[in-house]
Amino acid sequence: MIRFDCDYNESAHGAVLAAIAATAGEQHPGYGTDAHCARARDLIRSACDAPEAEVHFLVGGTQTNLTVIAAALRPWEGVIAPESGHIAAHETGAIEACGHKVLPLMHENGKLSAAAVAQAVEKARRDPNAEHIVQPALVYISQPTEYGALYSVSELAALHGACRAAGVRLFLDGARLGYALAADEGLTLADYARYCDVFTIGGTKLGCLFGEAVVITDKTLSPGFRNLTKQHGGLLAKGWLLGAQFETMFTDGLYLACGRAAVESARRIKAALAQKGLPLAFESPTNQLFVELTRAQSAALERDFALGHWDATGGETDVLRICTSWATTPQQTDALIAAIENL
Amino acid sequence: MIRFDCDYNESAHGAVLAAIAATAGEQHPGYGTDAHCARARDLIRSACDAPEAEVHFLVGGTQTNLTVIAAALRPWEGVIAPESGHIAAHETGAIEACGHKVLPLMHENGKLSAAAVAQAVEKARRDPNAEHIVQPALVYISQPTEYGALYSVSELAALHGACRAAGVRLFLDGARLGYALAADEGLTLADYARYCDVFTIGGTKLGCLFGEAVVITDKTLSPGFRNLTKQHGGLLAKGWLLGAQFETMFTDGLYLACGRAAVESARRIKAALAQKGLPLAFESPTNQLFVELTRAQSAALERDFALGHWDATGGETDVLRICTSWATTPQQTDALIAAIENL
Amino acid sequence: MIRFDCDYNESAHGAVLAAIAATAGEQHPGYGTDAHCARARDLIRSACDAPEAEVHFLVGGTQTNLTVIAAALRPWEGVIAPESGHIAAHETGAIEACGHKVLPLMHENGKLSAAAVAQAVEKARRDPNAEHIVQPALVYISQPTEYGALYSVSELAALHGACRAAGVRLFLDGARLGYALAADEGLTLADYARYCDVFTIGGTKLGCLFGEAVVITDKTLSPGFRNLTKQHGGLLAKGWLLGAQFETMFTDGLYLACGRAAVESARRIKAALAQKGLPLAFESPTNQLFVELTRAQSAALERDFALGHWDATGGETDVLRICTSWATTPQQTDALIAAIENL
Amino acid sequence: MIRFDCDYNESAHGAVLAAIAATAGEQHPGYGTDAHCARARDLIRSACDAPEAEVHFLVGGTQTNLTVIAAALRPWEGVIAPESGHIAAHETGAIEACGHKVLPLMHENGKLSAAAVAQAVEKARRDPNAEHIVQPALVYISQPTEYGALYSVSELAALHGACRAAGVRLFLDGARLGYALAADEGLTLADYARYCDVFTIGGTKLGCLFGEAVVITDKTLSPGFRNLTKQHGGLLAKGWLLGAQFETMFTDGLYLACGRAAVESARRIKAALAQKGLPLAFESPTNQLFVELTRAQSAALERDFALGHWDATGGETDVLRICTSWATTPQQTDALIAAIENL
Repeated sequence: MIRFDCDYNESAHGAVLAAIAATAGEQHPGYGTDAHCARARDLIRSACDAPEAEVHFLVGGTQTNLTVIAAALRPWEGVIAPESGHIAAHETGAIEACGHKVLPLMHENGKLSAAAVAQAVEKARRDPNAEHIVQPALVYISQPTEYGALYSVSELAALHGACRAAGVRLFLDGARLGYALAADEGLTLADYARYCDVFTIGGTKLGCLFGEAVVITDKTLSPGFRNLTKQHGGLLAKGWLLGAQFETMFTDGLYLACGRAAVESARRIKAALAQKGLPLAFESPTNQLFVELTRAQSAALERDFALGHWDATGGETDVLRICTSWATTPQQTDALIAAIENL
Repeated sequence: MIRFDCDYNESAHGAVLAAIAATAGEQHPGYGTDAHCARARDLIRSACDAPEAEVHFLVGGTQTNLTVIAAALRPWEGVIAPESGHIAAHETGAIEACGHKVLPLMHENGKLSAAAVAQAVEKARRDPNAEHIVQPALVYISQPTEYGALYSVSELAALHGACRAAGVRLFLDGARLGYALAADEGLTLADYARYCDVFTIGGTKLGCLFGEAVVITDKTLSPGFRNLTKQHGGLLAKGWLLGAQFETMFTDGLYLACGRAAVESARRIKAALAQKGLPLAFESPTNQLFVELTRAQSAALERDFALGHWDATGGETDVLRICTSWATTPQQTDALIAAIENL
Repeated sequence: MIRFDCDYNESAHGAVLAAIAATAGEQHPGYGTDAHCARARDLIRSACDAPEAEVHFLVGGTQTNLTVIAAALRPWEGVIAPESGHIAAHETGAIEACGHKVLPLMHENGKLSAAAVAQAVEKARRDPNAEHIVQPALVYISQPTEYGALYSVSELAALHGACRAAGVRLFLDGARLGYALAADEGLTLADYARYCDVFTIGGTKLGCLFGEAVVITDKTLSPGFRNLTKQHGGLLAKGWLLGAQFETMFTDGLYLACGRAAVESARRIKAALAQKGLPLAFESPTNQLFVELTRAQSAALERDFALGHWDATGGETDVLRICTSWATTPQQTDALIAAIENL
Repeated sequence: MIRFDCDYNESAHGAVLAAIAATAGEQHPGYGTDAHCARARDLIRSACDAPEAEVHFLVGGTQTNLTVIAAALRPWEGVIAPESGHIAAHETGAIEACGHKVLPLMHENGKLSAAAVAQAVEKARRDPNAEHIVQPALVYISQPTEYGALYSVSELAALHGACRAAGVRLFLDGARLGYALAADEGLTLADYARYCDVFTIGGTKLGCLFGEAVVITDKTLSPGFRNLTKQHGGLLAKGWLLGAQFETMFTDGLYLACGRAAVESARRIKAALAQKGLPLAFESPTNQLFVELTRAQSAALERDFALGHWDATGGETDVLRICTSWATTPQQTDALIAAIENL
């Protein structure tokens, strides 16, 4: 059984494992105040061309999302998110457990439009009973989205502009950001730093054992951020484990290389699907493919490959998710392509 | 600079690092549903002589405490803890952020007495305005305590009895449980499973990179426990990292061996302090020593050793904490003893 | 200016004011433990043909909703509600501030269907990542809805059945229940007691100065309900004020009479609108009418009458809400009808 | 049975009942946006010599406390309070349910000293692990305290100074403020406005049916205050009921007169206790007296009078609370004095 069902099914890149192993015998102060974290912060600031940015390291994505959002909102405020957004759909109400409403918006392949955001904020602000309405103060987006889609530079710039005009902040969840960077070389880390008030660079799904880097460019989000992280159980005692991993990922372009491998594998699989005439449910340029298969076809593929079940179309077919990762080998890709050709 | 300031200053035991490195190339389902976790659960159940117990793995201590407490309480209920308890004093209000009051009780070296617990519950229950009072429903203790002290079997049994009689549950925080097991061979894991409704076996401070095992013997605590863990950001995507570590620690007695090394080192240092006539602020049989030093003495020691600053006595002396760990080498212990002798 | 914009624009029914004035000089124990509350509880149990039901009195609607929902849910659970539901749209995130997600469902004129509820619960339960999904445990509906619509007996029975089958509770918000009772004499208080696990009987909008009676028929909701009420600031010190009002409303059929007056007034206005050929945005049998008016028409009416602005149709017309109440006099109704005829 | 057990055992002053009755037939906009509230706000600002202050009206004390505190704190911050403070001891964890820790301090008769506050803040700020400690950002005091004691002008000024110096705000709970104003004519409403960032003027225990006025002098507390009030269910739909009551209380000195009547009654009772040689547990200049009685004496008194049970001394005597109120008549006072003389 070869796993193509998610991008966190494997351990970590060899360089990361080596970096962790190399911490054996080292002694460090706790909670991210060590030299590995300091170096990793500098490397990330440099990669983002954002020398003033603040960088924090947390263990996982849900933890990161809830901490950032708790830092950004006052109690009566909420966060706008696409209905499909991870915080809206797959975090067991983590944001609500912090007291905040997620305000769901319609989306296209997981993407919000600047116009929809502007309109939603305007509606809440102008309601005659505005004090009875949760007031949006933050917009949450993912890059790539849950559908594998990407915001273009101009779309991201437009969202940024709409948020500025409306007086709300923009938060980009980059749990899979490396795959976005690999898929669209027009959008750089510096763009994310320029257009977002806060964004994350995901390690869990991209070469690390675990870890998300939070990059804060709007410094009004900083006070109390570490206190909040501790309060929600996210301040790792041995913080240097996070530092050592990100230090490795941002040395010699490893983070981007991890993304490229997965996107290249996905492109090869996509070509095989097209050749076979198997329709995609929607276009995705990154490491996730959503293909419509008959029950017989999916059963045949799932004999040897673990795939994700995305949705039932309601008819004779289902949509399955094929997810490559930094760890997908050319041999694994070849094997899946061969299976597709044999369907 | 050799660190004796805390027991999470070092990476992980070599066997643990090797186990993690060995996950390279493996593929696993996420969130602790993998084979490593399954084996680790079995090993822990077996070590606790508690075949029916439920075992969960979380990353860190604050996270674990808040998740267990959120699972155990209804919104109007609170948790009794010693004033010095970690949840009362050093978690940035993590329990309150979950909506619950920590009800502080007087303690002796961090220990609660059965009588004090019984009286506190009785007082809250019998208050004429009981509905206006936070009702205790859980008792939180640590073994060893923040002062390095230990509950004896009979004390633990008495607390268990008091909790049963009062209709509240008993939760034991074992972030340093291995040091307790090593220091008092009368108390076994089976005792903790017998006397506690839920307890933890800490890995972060005992040989692991990170990780706390939660052992639930009162199955009414189980429903929703994983949902709560996810909601609070504690469900590690690559859960097998936790499984692989605890699997290693509970093979061939490694967990206990890690505890013993630290306690042995602490005993040697304690003997050196006694020989030198340096007074302990209070007696501790585990891996933490609290010694009263003049400013000159502490300055001399701190030139080469990192120590914890516990408390100012208000006079000419301070209380410093010397903390050994699973990673403390005989050479490091020798070096500290030599420095003590030279004071 | 005569107000038809809401049903809480006026003081209280004369009998209620008299009952409150009559408390002058009385002395009572606090927090609803007095004789007025005891009698009011008995009268309500009797009116509901529910001798075993538990009855609580709270001051306002949002407070009541959040307290009931906090009592019904564990932290990882959520409450299904129509998108238009008061808790989803107009309570400043009060439910989220208690830590719970409101799970919005599509509706028809504010009503949920049994099938939609069954499907939503089934989807959450069967999700392969069910632990990452907020699990519904309660269904919130209003009678009448925000659109003035009514569930029929069979619809309510079907919802009840769907909730039972799915293992979730049913909560009916009766902030305007008196208008429902007056509009559809087929549905009695006993029906609400039979089909709901908990429901409210609103006083604020129906003759009282303030006050909502909570009727709990599922006694598993009871433990801690008063503690929770106190915790959320809803336990009125002078609870007898609530008792005296509900005692009055449930003597000699006053509650129902209050509802009937408003519904009769609304029927007369509806007939005038029909005669004038003014279209209703949707049918409502209760005390709220939603009429489509041109800007000129609404401007003409709003010279002398306060109306609610419900929605812009986007074209030349707006939807305005005309809301009668227990306090609307025949003269006020006549005046509005005359103004409609003169449009 | 005559009640001297609390000061909320009776309805409302006749003038307040008349003012409420006079609202019959009036029509008002909701949620405190009406003319009664506007006038009441002006009267209070004027009485406080604080023309810029913001005034809000809420129904009850717990609600008011939790709303003010939620407005004042960020999630990682806590509120310092005397251990005996209402928020610490008698609100079912309402503050914790908003996510905040109450940081209890030692007190003298319910009073905090400026020095203790300064030291507590300093300790939290300077802790080497300050991010793991709940940071105080607000100080909560009551005037009079739960023990009936009063801060003097100089004590209040000192607390104000300590708070300023430490960068925390000062919140004074004036649920019984009228009794303080009556007991110590040196301290005026203008003093409270000068020395507090926010304070309340209680109506529930002083002549009103219910109601607390919140006076905010630190305008940085204002944004979102009404949203928060709504979120916690405290925004009364018929807000004019609060306005009409406070309008009445602040016309012709009624609020102060209500306080004076109770304090005068208490002084007469205190003299009778002294004459009889019955010891006070502690000195109180306001409407509450705490007297040490033997079991036989308390049993004798409680045949005809409801008293509060404050504390068991552990020996042969108990401390009972005698609480007069705005409604206590000279006849009731005479009756109690006669009973005391007959002990």
